[in-house]
Amino acid sequence: MGGTGPEGRGLATRLGLAGIPAFVGSREIDRAREAVAKIRTAGVTIIEAASNDEVADRCDLVFLAVPFARAAEVVDAYRDRFRTRAVVVDLTVPLAFVDGVPRFVEMPEGSAAEHLRARLPATVRLAAALKTIPASVLGRVEVALDCDEFVCGDSPQARAAVIDTLGRIPGLRLLDVGGLEASRSLERMTLLAVEINKRYKIRTARFRVVGL
Amino acid sequence: MGGTGPEGRGLATRLGLAGIPAFVGSREIDRAREAVAKIRTAGVTIIEAASNDEVADRCDLVFLAVPFARAAEVVDAYRDRFRTRAVVVDLTVPLAFVDGVPRFVEMPEGSAAEHLRARLPATVRLAAALKTIPASVLGRVEVALDCDEFVCGDSPQARAAVIDTLGRIPGLRLLDVGGLEASRSLERMTLLAVEINKRYKIRTARFRVVGL
Repeated sequence: MGGTGPEGRGLATRLGLAGIPAFVGSREIDRAREAVAKIRTAGVTIIEAASNDEVADRCDLVFLAVPFARAAEVVDAYRDRFRTRAVVVDLTVPLAFVDGVPRFVEMPEGSAAEHLRARLPATVRLAAALKTIPASVLGRVEVALDCDEFVCGDSPQARAAVIDTLGRIPGLRLLDVGGLEASRSLERMTLLAVEINKRYKIRTARFRVVGL
Repeated sequence: MGGTGPEGRGLATRLGLAGIPAFVGSREIDRAREAVAKIRTAGVTIIEAASNDEVADRCDLVFLAVPFARAAEVVDAYRDRFRTRAVVVDLTVPLAFVDGVPRFVEMPEGSAAEHLRARLPATVRLAAALKTIPASVLGRVEVALDCDEFVCGDSPQARAAVIDTLGRIPGLRLLDVGGLEASRSLERMTLLAVEINKRYKIRTARFRVVGL
């Protein structure tokens, strides 16, 4: 869902290149079709366009590749439409840019992921993943990821499903970091990566765990 | 200060091996002397024992290698004794272990480092560093660090002084991550490393920034 931006399109392309079929979802099917047309130019044929309605109706694993500012609204719109036992994956980071300066948005629940969790029925499982990887890196599919990503969520089965799928993307090592509360660390790490990008004039900072 | 534990002794040994003279400070000079005797067995001769009083009186760069639970007390005891323009480096992480389970301690100032900053006079500069590296890794000097560490603090000169000194330790890349508020990210990253250690049955998780 919201797969028409650089992050969603990059994720869909990388899934497709790894042989994993997926839908790019958008509120407007035409925007999804445009995104898929671009993905096809990367030689990927197993990614298809869908409306967000159709994604909610048909998919057991849904990545929310929407901006932080829109995520709650999207979750609210589909909360009763997601499949029972669907796994919804939050990729958002609670950053607001004020005059180009990133400000961390403190969430009453502790993290953006926990904020979304609180808006979903208990039958839908929420996991968080891909929070610390820059959208610009994910979107440039010619760049090897060469990093680790962290998956958290209160359902071990949901975490395993996310790791199983994303783990098939080359160059990406997925680490299970436990319950959803770990999203507090992941969202703050992204703020750190943004700060490193700014200070070192790069756009590519991401993380690898050493010693594992 | 507090250099007699594995973290402080490891840091002092690594500084000594890099040719940087330093004192190991303790409230009790005999404990400092015992630590230095152990450091000498690693072939390091330029590290000396001192009382914490002497460290505060003589040193322009002071590493606080004390447990989180004792850090505020140590800062309070020496706040008026540190040299004017001294750089005090906070290594602590606000974790409390309850039945072996790490719990993050929320600090009213936002982080443990900011908590200590608030207790020091304005003439003393506080930086945070080495927060995300496990004490057990720092302490085993035969293990190459092979990772990045993050330095933050509100004084750019203080950050530069810390980076200049720690940057001489082989295998350690120091990154300047800006103002002291970044300690909020660093302390949460350490919680994540502890979680990774627990889940993957290791004790060595630390971080490297990719793309830099």
